[in-house]
Amino acid sequence: MAKIVELIAVGTELLLGNIVNLDAQILSQGLSALGLNVYYHTVVGDNPQRVRDVVETAKKRADIIITTGGLGPTCDDLTKVVLAEAFGKKLVHDEDTMVRIRAYFEKINALHRMTPNNAQQALLPEGCTIFTNDWGTAPGCGFFAEDTHVLMLPGPPSECKAMFEHRAKPYLENLSEGMIVSHTLKFFAMGESQLEHELREQMNVMTNPTLAPYAKIGEVELRVTAKAPTAEEAEVLLAPEIEKLKAQFGGKIYGVDVNSLEEVASRLLKEKGLTLALAESCTGGYVGKRITDVAGASAVFLGSVVCYALSVKEKLLGVSKDLLEEKGAVSSEVAVAMAEGVRQALGSDIGMSITGLAGPDSDASNLPVGTVFVAFSTEKETHVRQLKLGDSRERIRLLAGHHVFDMLRRYLSDLPIEFN
Amino acid sequence: MAKIVELIAVGTELLLGNIVNLDAQILSQGLSALGLNVYYHTVVGDNPQRVRDVVETAKKRADIIITTGGLGPTCDDLTKVVLAEAFGKKLVHDEDTMVRIRAYFEKINALHRMTPNNAQQALLPEGCTIFTNDWGTAPGCGFFAEDTHVLMLPGPPSECKAMFEHRAKPYLENLSEGMIVSHTLKFFAMGESQLEHELREQMNVMTNPTLAPYAKIGEVELRVTAKAPTAEEAEVLLAPEIEKLKAQFGGKIYGVDVNSLEEVASRLLKEKGLTLALAESCTGGYVGKRITDVAGASAVFLGSVVCYALSVKEKLLGVSKDLLEEKGAVSSEVAVAMAEGVRQALGSDIGMSITGLAGPDSDASNLPVGTVFVAFSTEKETHVRQLKLGDSRERIRLLAGHHVFDMLRRYLSDLPIEFN
Repeated sequence: MAKIVELIAVGTELLLGNIVNLDAQILSQGLSALGLNVYYHTVVGDNPQRVRDVVETAKKRADIIITTGGLGPTCDDLTKVVLAEAFGKKLVHDEDTMVRIRAYFEKINALHRMTPNNAQQALLPEGCTIFTNDWGTAPGCGFFAEDTHVLMLPGPPSECKAMFEHRAKPYLENLSEGMIVSHTLKFFAMGESQLEHELREQMNVMTNPTLAPYAKIGEVELRVTAKAPTAEEAEVLLAPEIEKLKAQFGGKIYGVDVNSLEEVASRLLKEKGLTLALAESCTGGYVGKRITDVAGASAVFLGSVVCYALSVKEKLLGVSKDLLEEKGAVSSEVAVAMAEGVRQALGSDIGMSITGLAGPDSDASNLPVGTVFVAFSTEKETHVRQLKLGDSRERIRLLAGHHVFDMLRRYLSDLPIEFN
Repeated sequence: MAKIVELIAVGTELLLGNIVNLDAQILSQGLSALGLNVYYHTVVGDNPQRVRDVVETAKKRADIIITTGGLGPTCDDLTKVVLAEAFGKKLVHDEDTMVRIRAYFEKINALHRMTPNNAQQALLPEGCTIFTNDWGTAPGCGFFAEDTHVLMLPGPPSECKAMFEHRAKPYLENLSEGMIVSHTLKFFAMGESQLEHELREQMNVMTNPTLAPYAKIGEVELRVTAKAPTAEEAEVLLAPEIEKLKAQFGGKIYGVDVNSLEEVASRLLKEKGLTLALAESCTGGYVGKRITDVAGASAVFLGSVVCYALSVKEKLLGVSKDLLEEKGAVSSEVAVAMAEGVRQALGSDIGMSITGLAGPDSDASNLPVGTVFVAFSTEKETHVRQLKLGDSRERIRLLAGHHVFDMLRRYLSDLPIEFN
């Protein structure tokens, strides 16, 4: 039987909604990849009795308990104390850890910020495996007691992620039996229930591999999962299923095991040796931010002109005042002029533009909020998509970005660029 | 006694780490504001027996159970079935709901995406209060049974948020006794343990109001919370404490109950009637994105030049080739030239620039990854901050953005702009 994992996050800030439980997501991804079954996430506040109670519940239903948070230097950080108590362990001072904490403050040039509270972080359960923290001050640890594996990791997501990858994962790897392998197919411009409808018959009879669709904003992911004694055997089960899905859905699938449309578009640009420039209006720089999220963007992305004001559209992109007045800033014609203008101004192979109404209010044009034009220009051709993207500012900008990269990856894959 | 709430999110996609439990954050914020105590968040997969088990646990320790997710049209959506069973209720078809679901698909122009699965969404527990969903297809509901209030809300965060605000909140408002009111002070450039150290004596003796610091990347928030029979009485307790903290920490506090540095900077620009233009290199458009996240940015933000390539720094910002070669693109001198260049090119009152190494690799300059210069320029003065922002690409870009808006709000509040 695969081991059952429960994640316990300790922190009143989570229960007040001050922060989101990103650690649970990070760990769940990593644990699934190890073939461990995460069955429960629990969040509890900085209250010793309630932490103790949820640990007792977790003991009964899980083989592995992983806590996040509550290892920091502030006085409401209590995870180590409660967990050590719950499993009958003493806390003992670890001098190596103390030295490391001091060195960390030196490295980030913040020794003046170190306080006596930081010394609490060097207390650890006796006999545990110490997870040295090279990414922050709080060390983690792991031990086995009362038939349960207990691991404690720090709360800040960047530390939790690094500590899982480099400390907890090696510790856990030999606890897993059998391997679960998943691949994720990413769809653009297809609804979750539409996808499920088309796949329902297949899904009902499949047991290994299995299919699980789920919706993100503007996208759907389809996770194909197989279980086998080894990862290689799981891959043998997955390959024909993935080929079948690709044949069935064609260009609607923009990638397998990729993070995002921009990652795919960026890779294709690099493969073809082409460069991109952007003219962004309502997105304010967001689309350029997305392509530069992908490391190595400098090989394909020259830059953008963010032309939030009309004057910038004229001055830097050469969009004529007449065209702006006649057609309005949010129009197919201005979108094309922006894409062409930025391509010429920056000297790129491809120019793309976004102009639209992200709300909350409409403008003089009386177009509805959510109207967005995305244009594409090379020396030889131009394309425009006119979109209706709802009424939330955040969603409009997100989806406008999706369309930029979808048009780009379609062009670079010789698929039709316009749709609707 | 204030009512105790447990949030139960149903969805294997959460346990696989495909998505983060944003609903828990949204609801926790809203529930705290109502004076309800959220003591537990639980996440469980799409497995009827385990959902049933966590509901039984929640019954014992909470007065109010709020579920999120599992109301959608796909066949693994099972929340309604299990909750109705757990509380001895039948599911009955609601025709009004069916009509609404159909109308929703019409409204978003996607009737072709509607499938027979969507009809399941019109089944609801008998005698419940139906929470009509004007933001998606799945209705929610609320009922009282076995001494427990049970509410079910849809999973997609935008729907969950709207449904809470407009449906669940009015339903819950009369269950709360006493009011908890919080205000949040936001600090920039101060560590959590440093803040806690300076406040520890006060915190140890305070009972109402209370202080709770918590860390975000590059920022610390300090939540000041009071409880009283009415919101007005709670405010009377809070006001002198907040004044005291402001006097103690001065300009390190950038705002009270504000969302972000960009919100503060944007408001100050508007108040002073000044405009901003940005020249972004390593941030790729991210800083412009942030200022345009704030609605109404068009009054203060003209646009940006994202000069990822050297050629764009020369062509659009007039940074001289000699300066770029002599000092390097990542230098104090080039940062200033970029800020001045963009101010002049776009005709704004203030120009700001960001140039740095966001990694993962360094460049020919051999400066360490994380070296960033942020420059500020008006007709009369220039300022630069040289920063060392660690080695994660995401963190470097985030903090660079924080510094842009911190410099800006300091300038606009007559505080010193440089620090270190």
